[in-house]
Amino acid sequence: MPHRDRNDAAGAGKTPRTERGRRTMRAILDAAALEFGERGFHDASISGITRRAGVALGSFYTYFDSKDAVFRALVRDMSDQVRDHVAPGIRAAPDQLAAEQAGLREFIGFVRGHKVLYRIIDESEFVDPDSFRLHYATTAERIATRLKAGAARGEIRADVSEIHAWALMGINVFLGLRYGVWAEDVAAETVAETIADMLINGIGPARP
Amino acid sequence: MPHRDRNDAAGAGKTPRTERGRRTMRAILDAAALEFGERGFHDASISGITRRAGVALGSFYTYFDSKDAVFRALVRDMSDQVRDHVAPGIRAAPDQLAAEQAGLREFIGFVRGHKVLYRIIDESEFVDPDSFRLHYATTAERIATRLKAGAARGEIRADVSEIHAWALMGINVFLGLRYGVWAEDVAAETVAETIADMLINGIGPARP
Repeated sequence: MPHRDRNDAAGAGKTPRTERGRRTMRAILDAAALEFGERGFHDASISGITRRAGVALGSFYTYFDSKDAVFRALVRDMSDQVRDHVAPGIRAAPDQLAAEQAGLREFIGFVRGHKVLYRIIDESEFVDPDSFRLHYATTAERIATRLKAGAARGEIRADVSEIHAWALMGINVFLGLRYGVWAEDVAAETVAETIADMLINGIGPARP
Repeated sequence: MPHRDRNDAAGAGKTPRTERGRRTMRAILDAAALEFGERGFHDASISGITRRAGVALGSFYTYFDSKDAVFRALVRDMSDQVRDHVAPGIRAAPDQLAAEQAGLREFIGFVRGHKVLYRIIDESEFVDPDSFRLHYATTAERIATRLKAGAARGEIRADVSEIHAWALMGINVFLGLRYGVWAEDVAAETVAETIADMLINGIGPARP
């Protein structure tokens, strides 16, 4: 196997060149999500992944060098999946505050359908700290960029900063944990509306 | 060793009866924070803890049955330490919004002095899921209780709920990660002021 730099996210998996290759890689990543999500990194095995994916061991090694490599690719894949899942709702919203509301609603929906997401991202803090850091740094930067674009359109306060972006990320992650992973006792839309109202009116007493 | 129920948090460590015993247990917990924080749960060892604490192996077993037990006690101890560290600032604040600002400022300060906090709480998700859940459920409940008390005094919106409490917890955890663990490039007070302003005025454009 050629040496791959551990910090080189692009080196986590080889890019498939054919449609069939893309389907195989997709099957391996989906199987890896189940295997790592259910068993944790240390107990998970490459043969467990290939068995779940219904692919040969050779196919696995066509795309990944090791258990570490497929885990690293999976963190990045889940991060991208979240981004892609929430993007249409954000884009369709009439303004940036509505976009943040749609983003949270869609995120909770995604989490409910992908309960392993947290286990995988959270375990990356221990298995692959660079992936963990990259996931949150990238997400915060994406939020900061869209908040600043909203500020430029006059929809968000002019002094919006990285601090607000990290605050919004924290809100989304923890509401996703409570109302997505732990229990589904409140509608995602209700949670998102409550937060949107807080982001517009604050949590102080009603203004006169 | 007597059997102890894994879910019984009180069973994580025996309560010392003397002042000397309390000092020994404190030394063991502080050493455990360093050992688990630096090496992670799997690589950490009881002998590593007793060596760091400067206590005999027998003293360890006076208070804890196993590596699992001391880890469980540590998660609870760090959770209590955070609560105790932020409590005076919260109590001294003139109103609930100022209290939330003081709480965040003090939390970031605590994290800067205890960088292992996140690694330990975060690893509990895998090592001892009950402790992980208890930590966040207890913290959210404490925040909800003080927000509702603030609402009763007319300092917080009347419809404040568990959703707001989880949002505030998410804000605190992620700003603690970014400005406490990752880098100290912004003053804790600046971060806390920015969030307090957001909690009062929202992130929408300035009101006319």
